[in-house]
Amino acid sequence: MKLIRFGAPGQEKPGVLINEKRYDVSHLVADYNEAFFAGDALETLKHDVEKGGLPEVSDSERLGAPLARPSKLICVGLNYKDHAAETNAPIPSEPILFFKATTAIVGPNDDLIIPKNSTKTDWEVELAIVIGKKASYVDEADALNHVAGYVLHNDYSERAFQIERNGQWVKGKSCDTFAPLGPWIATQDEIEDVHNLRLWLTVNGKKVQDGSTANLIFNVPFIVSYISQFMTLLPGDVITTGTPAGVGLGMKPEPWYLKPGDVVELGIDGLGSSKQNVKAYQ
Amino acid sequence: MKLIRFGAPGQEKPGVLINEKRYDVSHLVADYNEAFFAGDALETLKHDVEKGGLPEVSDSERLGAPLARPSKLICVGLNYKDHAAETNAPIPSEPILFFKATTAIVGPNDDLIIPKNSTKTDWEVELAIVIGKKASYVDEADALNHVAGYVLHNDYSERAFQIERNGQWVKGKSCDTFAPLGPWIATQDEIEDVHNLRLWLTVNGKKVQDGSTANLIFNVPFIVSYISQFMTLLPGDVITTGTPAGVGLGMKPEPWYLKPGDVVELGIDGLGSSKQNVKAYQ
Repeated sequence: MKLIRFGAPGQEKPGVLINEKRYDVSHLVADYNEAFFAGDALETLKHDVEKGGLPEVSDSERLGAPLARPSKLICVGLNYKDHAAETNAPIPSEPILFFKATTAIVGPNDDLIIPKNSTKTDWEVELAIVIGKKASYVDEADALNHVAGYVLHNDYSERAFQIERNGQWVKGKSCDTFAPLGPWIATQDEIEDVHNLRLWLTVNGKKVQDGSTANLIFNVPFIVSYISQFMTLLPGDVITTGTPAGVGLGMKPEPWYLKPGDVVELGIDGLGSSKQNVKAYQ
Repeated sequence: MKLIRFGAPGQEKPGVLINEKRYDVSHLVADYNEAFFAGDALETLKHDVEKGGLPEVSDSERLGAPLARPSKLICVGLNYKDHAAETNAPIPSEPILFFKATTAIVGPNDDLIIPKNSTKTDWEVELAIVIGKKASYVDEADALNHVAGYVLHNDYSERAFQIERNGQWVKGKSCDTFAPLGPWIATQDEIEDVHNLRLWLTVNGKKVQDGSTANLIFNVPFIVSYISQFMTLLPGDVITTGTPAGVGLGMKPEPWYLKPGDVVELGIDGLGSSKQNVKAYQ
């Protein structure tokens, strides 16, 4: 199943995508939130959807992030060898973790707003995991039982805030609009092999990132199990798994950062594509 | 006003503390959550409470954290000179920020559970700020208008997870039970001078931390304004402002870490005291 949310910011309703058509399911579920992912609601929804007769939703409706605000948006840093190399960082011996503020989450095609005083706003196409079942100290072998599905994420990053403003990356990762999620959550059964998905990103039509999740240093079950050793993952929590080479920071001979008027597009096999128009803060 | 929440974990109800007596206000407000802090509910509650006639709550009832799960629990690192010195860190030129997982939040007197594989679980008494009004790019002069009140926090930290496990502090800050909050939120009007509060912590009755918020490197209005340059603060978000000297990591000649059976007590002028019994993970 493909889960979407549609409507004005803050007023999104849950829906599903079937054969590229959007359907409203807000009469069946309240929202794609912690309670939804925690229970049997996903399974029940699947049965209800199979009965058909759902109200259609116009393609012109705005898409929101395909889930309600999670308790955590956890990021794995430097999880592709080529990206670690381009940023002159060593290959991590174990996953680097950091958080993004959940206030950064927006819809997949919402504008990217360059923060005030920003000079180094950068892109990062990433595969994100949506947690389906509370996870604390789970084994790698059991980890996928705690996953609801996957979603496309652009982990926007302000490199000066992240690296040059005195310690800890969170400052450069948490600005408003820095976490477009979607267009949809693909439930696990929709994705044949999560470790063999192409992911790409273009800026103004120029391909800058073109990688494969086959090159993840730490794979999905390992990451879920690993993080669950340090904190409890709640249903609906989002883990974003790192980006392949091709970010602005790594460009030669000069880094390349976003400016108002730029257009960023990105996609992952099976998870659709998204597009952000870059705007100045006003 | 002093806001409390009482009842079993996950089923806490809102209350107030008046002259050290607890009263139920769950018929007046749903919970101390984002919606509560965002609106006029605090002011309305004050008027309602003044009318009297509230149902009393037994002193034997468990206290929960005095607010519902916030969108963010933001921490300022190394914000007292003496603590920076004891950890051999330089005085920060601007605030160091990191997040704690909100799943770490527990009631003020709940047990501290030492995580699996932990060898270096440490304490940190801290003054925490509760945001009352959405804050994005606010000036220092206006910052206190975005504050609802203050609360006592023990920023428990696993030093091996934080420092020796490959980058970013979040791993050592986010374990379950690592964020006891309370006993109460004191609204701003309850605290005469937030920059002149004594804060202390004992382990098994021995005083290990004894500082004053007069020694904060970055003060409350500066911190709120500063963080709001990097992310939007939502009503009910919590900012914890750093700890003075006397943590286990800084002990001479050897660091001193917690073990099952230890008892940690802490307090801040006007914000009450809390007590955590240290237990092993089971």
